[in-house]
Amino acid sequence: MGGDHGPSVVVPAVVRALRDLPEEVRILLHGDETAIAAGLAKHPRAAARVEIRHAERVISMDEKPAQALRRGKGTSMWNAVESVREGQAAAALSAGNTGALWTISRLILRMTGELERPALVTSIPTPRGVTTLLDVGANIDCDAERLVEFAIMGEAFHRAAHSVSRPTVGLLNVGSEEMKGHEEVREANRILREGKIDLDYRGFVEGDDITRGGVDVIVTDGFTGNVALKAMEGVGRFVLNELRGALTSGPLASLGALLARPALQRFGERMTPTPAAPILGLNGIVLKAHGGASERDFAKAIRLAVDLARSDFSAEIERNMRRLPDALAEPLAEPADEAAQGVRE
Amino acid sequence: MGGDHGPSVVVPAVVRALRDLPEEVRILLHGDETAIAAGLAKHPRAAARVEIRHAERVISMDEKPAQALRRGKGTSMWNAVESVREGQAAAALSAGNTGALWTISRLILRMTGELERPALVTSIPTPRGVTTLLDVGANIDCDAERLVEFAIMGEAFHRAAHSVSRPTVGLLNVGSEEMKGHEEVREANRILREGKIDLDYRGFVEGDDITRGGVDVIVTDGFTGNVALKAMEGVGRFVLNELRGALTSGPLASLGALLARPALQRFGERMTPTPAAPILGLNGIVLKAHGGASERDFAKAIRLAVDLARSDFSAEIERNMRRLPDALAEPLAEPADEAAQGVRE
Repeated sequence: MGGDHGPSVVVPAVVRALRDLPEEVRILLHGDETAIAAGLAKHPRAAARVEIRHAERVISMDEKPAQALRRGKGTSMWNAVESVREGQAAAALSAGNTGALWTISRLILRMTGELERPALVTSIPTPRGVTTLLDVGANIDCDAERLVEFAIMGEAFHRAAHSVSRPTVGLLNVGSEEMKGHEEVREANRILREGKIDLDYRGFVEGDDITRGGVDVIVTDGFTGNVALKAMEGVGRFVLNELRGALTSGPLASLGALLARPALQRFGERMTPTPAAPILGLNGIVLKAHGGASERDFAKAIRLAVDLARSDFSAEIERNMRRLPDALAEPLAEPADEAAQGVRE
Repeated sequence: MGGDHGPSVVVPAVVRALRDLPEEVRILLHGDETAIAAGLAKHPRAAARVEIRHAERVISMDEKPAQALRRGKGTSMWNAVESVREGQAAAALSAGNTGALWTISRLILRMTGELERPALVTSIPTPRGVTTLLDVGANIDCDAERLVEFAIMGEAFHRAAHSVSRPTVGLLNVGSEEMKGHEEVREANRILREGKIDLDYRGFVEGDDITRGGVDVIVTDGFTGNVALKAMEGVGRFVLNELRGALTSGPLASLGALLARPALQRFGERMTPTPAAPILGLNGIVLKAHGGASERDFAKAIRLAVDLARSDFSAEIERNMRRLPDALAEPLAEPADEAAQGVRE
């Protein structure tokens, strides 16, 4: 029911996704039964694989998380997350209110092991595949321990989602010599460098490494990650618009664009950001789809949810988390690595 | 002498820039006299407008700022900045070591008025013109006062550099409802909202507003700004490479690309980031060119230096700075605006 379009996008997206998904994949749709049933009426084959769970109420897009928590019970979002806890669903996907989904999921599913707070993760295309970037907005103030947790969660997620047996991990920082990042980043670097946590940690990376693909997983706080992600999306949109403008600027350019169309379409496809951000660290899989997701985007998000549900990433996270207290217990050593030596003016 | 290429790029760039610049613009070149004179030998018209100031020594790209400060005297960089203080040059431009340039400039030129630290500023293309973004890396930890200073400097810079009489200003933040930025950002928002500083302040903006052009000036701390800038540059490069790949992927696509070539070239030109970042807040104009700047980039950077030298932005900054102590003296009021009400989980 959530997002900018509700069932008018979600239902056709389900139909579209089910076409490509193995027969055994089935979908629970939580929300207004009448609207959903109407949308499914013309698609009996898809409808046979869908079960509708009627919900009277909906969490609106502008509801505050605290409010959503108080009056959330019985809403379509609440029920969807609850069905994960009850083992009726292997993953929950929503295009609704991010803050509400985050808060409700944390309450209903609880955190895995000793994890403090969930993280939002996203995948960015690179020439070599994808970069996993986290946190992209769930945690604004992050201490070193939080960043180390993100490294653990992100690495496990990347292995599960992209079948990379030993993903490499980097910590986002700034480049200039005179100021090598703030306290939290340098401390997280120290912990990860120590090697008590089983990760292929590669040290600091910079903003342009996100699309370069030099490491698989890039860790940062939710403020920086959110700004960087949105800034990159902005550039992507801007560039595609400018390109469209350039390629329709005259008859020759237009003819050129026509001839190059299939190539440009593949290019556009490649540039589309992933349509859903999983919320990591919960005892269960929850994904947040973009509020403005189109039918096609939402269908992609469903496929991602299925992939994650079939993977083992929660167990991966838990395995690594067990080593965290050990790594943090280490007494604060002399700052021995290059990072601590950046001169601060 | 600095940057990845030294005089082999700087000298031809000077020749190129002088072709388009008014006759009265003259250039002081600090560095190895022999190398510079050799580069100018074939260009007598340009050479007539250039004066070479020999410097024995050079600050290397990997020198630490503190070290550069100790042994900087007499280097080409030091002399270039000194010539601004002595009134012999209206602006200094270097492709050398960023930290060294920043530190040396601060020592030699001192800060304007009550400003604490200089900021690095950059301009990002948008459909409507350019966005001024700062700080992009000079100040990692920023309190609210620092962010307010950036707003003042950035607004004055934008007016001077882009001839906009009353630039609009936004503060970079994250979007999700449940966590409206950290302490420093909310406090800076409060001060700017109060209106004691003469600015057209528009409140919070998000990462994708950088390329949207909704406000003229976007303010953030140096960590976030640096990561966002580099992330955007990374996307730009990635997209252009992918596009090149797409347009040479087959004979039809290649023919299309050929026909659309002039349009694509204009597109590429438009997407090129500005080649130099001015260091704001000093009693004098200093610009940092990209270390890897090409001849063409460096020529553009020279033109930008000339534009700034002819503008009045230092005086603009000073005027606004006079109002800052007043705005900060205000007792901490109850958090009255919407920003302070973001629920933090």
